[in-house]
Amino acid sequence: MKPVRIGLLGLGTVGSGVVRLLERNRDVIEEKAGAPVQVVRALVRDPRKARDLGGARPELTTDPAEVAGAPDIDMVVEVLGGTEPARDYILRALRAGQFVVTANKDVMAEYGADVFEAARAGGAEVWFEASVGGGIPIIRPLKESLGANRIQSVLGIVNGTTNYILTRMTREGMSFDDALREAQRLGYAEPDPRNDVDGIDAARKLAILASIGFLSRITPADVYTEGIGSIGPRDIEHGRRLGWTVKLLAIARERDGAIEARVHPAFIPLHHPLAAVSGSLNAIFVTGDAVGETMFYGRGAGDMPTASSVLGDVIGAARSLALRRLLGGQRPEAAPYWPGTVLQCTCYHDKPVRPMAEVVTRTYLRLTVVDQPGVLARVAGVLGQNGVSIAHILQTPDEATGTAEIALVTHEVVERRMEEALATLRRLPEVRAVESRIRIEG
Amino acid sequence: MKPVRIGLLGLGTVGSGVVRLLERNRDVIEEKAGAPVQVVRALVRDPRKARDLGGARPELTTDPAEVAGAPDIDMVVEVLGGTEPARDYILRALRAGQFVVTANKDVMAEYGADVFEAARAGGAEVWFEASVGGGIPIIRPLKESLGANRIQSVLGIVNGTTNYILTRMTREGMSFDDALREAQRLGYAEPDPRNDVDGIDAARKLAILASIGFLSRITPADVYTEGIGSIGPRDIEHGRRLGWTVKLLAIARERDGAIEARVHPAFIPLHHPLAAVSGSLNAIFVTGDAVGETMFYGRGAGDMPTASSVLGDVIGAARSLALRRLLGGQRPEAAPYWPGTVLQCTCYHDKPVRPMAEVVTRTYLRLTVVDQPGVLARVAGVLGQNGVSIAHILQTPDEATGTAEIALVTHEVVERRMEEALATLRRLPEVRAVESRIRIEG
Repeated sequence: MKPVRIGLLGLGTVGSGVVRLLERNRDVIEEKAGAPVQVVRALVRDPRKARDLGGARPELTTDPAEVAGAPDIDMVVEVLGGTEPARDYILRALRAGQFVVTANKDVMAEYGADVFEAARAGGAEVWFEASVGGGIPIIRPLKESLGANRIQSVLGIVNGTTNYILTRMTREGMSFDDALREAQRLGYAEPDPRNDVDGIDAARKLAILASIGFLSRITPADVYTEGIGSIGPRDIEHGRRLGWTVKLLAIARERDGAIEARVHPAFIPLHHPLAAVSGSLNAIFVTGDAVGETMFYGRGAGDMPTASSVLGDVIGAARSLALRRLLGGQRPEAAPYWPGTVLQCTCYHDKPVRPMAEVVTRTYLRLTVVDQPGVLARVAGVLGQNGVSIAHILQTPDEATGTAEIALVTHEVVERRMEEALATLRRLPEVRAVESRIRIEG
Repeated sequence: MKPVRIGLLGLGTVGSGVVRLLERNRDVIEEKAGAPVQVVRALVRDPRKARDLGGARPELTTDPAEVAGAPDIDMVVEVLGGTEPARDYILRALRAGQFVVTANKDVMAEYGADVFEAARAGGAEVWFEASVGGGIPIIRPLKESLGANRIQSVLGIVNGTTNYILTRMTREGMSFDDALREAQRLGYAEPDPRNDVDGIDAARKLAILASIGFLSRITPADVYTEGIGSIGPRDIEHGRRLGWTVKLLAIARERDGAIEARVHPAFIPLHHPLAAVSGSLNAIFVTGDAVGETMFYGRGAGDMPTASSVLGDVIGAARSLALRRLLGGQRPEAAPYWPGTVLQCTCYHDKPVRPMAEVVTRTYLRLTVVDQPGVLARVAGVLGQNGVSIAHILQTPDEATGTAEIALVTHEVVERRMEEALATLRRLPEVRAVESRIRIEG
């Protein structure tokens, strides 16, 4: 059988992981691919840099045209990360008819429509299991195995950095800053951690999952995004007493024909399957109208887990490529059922996105107030005037500072009213600060 | 596009669920299948029986030849369950070139080789996601998404009946008999529960998972099988004190080129992701050399979860069928890369199965002994003579009966030696009974 000739874009942590895993498991990979799989060339910035490639010796190049669009490359594996120049290379490769396997959440989330259009135009396919959830199989199961369901919701812990930080805060009572510094020291967080802790990374992954789940394009701009920076140990303590744990959740839900998509810290019950997902692990909890609740759990990052997904896609894409060759190179226009086709664009619909202001949630709030009679009633009054009904409320004085802490939990209320109530609360002279706000899910 | 004409074998709980789900979600199913999907005929025992089919009116027949092998049926969905006549019909359908989607673990576990051979001979495909884990996507993720891994182990909670019983025993302190009776009353257990409580059902599912994971055929005869009947509330209490919970685990592992496959009750740590899988839920915990630990969780049975998997397969099989038609009906001999081909036989190897006697485990034991001085030392001595080293031991007297309970936990030991030690212990006059034995995993 003719070998599949792969060109790599990027040979960093994930790229060299892909090369090493292919070397190590070549036998099982080629049994399933049905053909020899060769990494013939890799685009790198510095060809002289030392790399552990497990004995493989791909040709190294600094010229992207030697990979994307190169006539001797059948399949391009893109593991550069980031938007540019990855997007440009992916589009070039697809338009030239090369199959593309990518781990790039940024490109797929922001420019998925362009990528699928380029694949269609070039008669090629793009496979992107590794773009969400690292090693966890989720894109294909959601597109294929659960394909007969109307997906109702997707709840994901899809960012390992924030989950690590929140787990340390929960287990050790650490502050956010201390937990972040530890995560940075251990390499779980970047020197500039904003992409993770502000929820941006999770929002991109959610855009991909929501687009697949609801068969309608969701981009990161559609995702309401809040980070974990304002969560304190007191919030975690209050949550524990109420039977909850805090997670940065990526939530997408279809209700009454509209899609809501949001990333924010959320309390979930301790008995929820997502509550046990700790440290840098990831999990995606999918509810479908037929399957009910289902969850996919594993390592959401790292060289080998990501390489597992990339090479799983390489196997599938290699089979699809081999089939086309055997049948004389027909393009998908002539045969819309190629193996990888269901993995291409499935945004058949154009469903409206529900603005965050119209989303209904329950909320936990923690305020610092002046410790004087009547403050609790005043806070409760403001909430009541805005239609926010209170389920629990707890006031704890702090004699040292002459302030008190008010922690409260609301019943379900539309965000718009909650925001109005918060704006009024912030203007009250008795309210020193709205310290944190955590929505409640599940 | 030409419709896909489906014939159902069986129209019981799962069969009518398939029909209802297709009626309800026809739009999303046909978008993905790329063709109209019609259930045109169903084999039933009694055509006059009342059935809720959500408004669908397939032709009913009592003649299997009107479905399996019938020239106007493209795809056969087998939801009869059990070995015969399901096996016969499946083989007939495949040999006649019909694609088959089946939920049948018995046929796939016992006769998988014959089924795949019939598919090959007939130029057809068999899809069987629903045969393990009900609605949980596991067959395709294991074959495809995780295809680049060397699978190291599969640990499954794959029988909802026993998981329900053990959960009730754990949470409410119920006896096995009471929990079983409750499960029977609620319809979670059959009037004759042996297939579930003795581990037979789980062993069949494990045979399928192990064959896929290790690329080598494992049949139920290769699976060491023990049920949950001897577990008592005392065992669960001891386990809890040691930080464990008990589950009926289906375990397959490859070590040093040999495969071990076994179903038995096992203690797992409370923090293990499988520990939180309670009630009638299922989960499969897969460890691969690249992906690390990953878990698939959801409803392992029920009409709608099973229909979710069946119709997910129907979508995939329909696409494969449509592609063949478009390309002029080529058979897989000419093109071994058809979409469904990787879902066919992947038992490329013939790896040895490690006999249970050679498997190494840690074990918890509970004995009833005569309450007299020196018995504990006697028991410990027998274990020591057989090379079984003790990690914990606890003796509790029962003054009312003049007996004592000994609960102990061993270090790792090969089963053969453990069995020899147990045989000797059972012969000791001081030992009234070896009440229970639970291996420890994770």
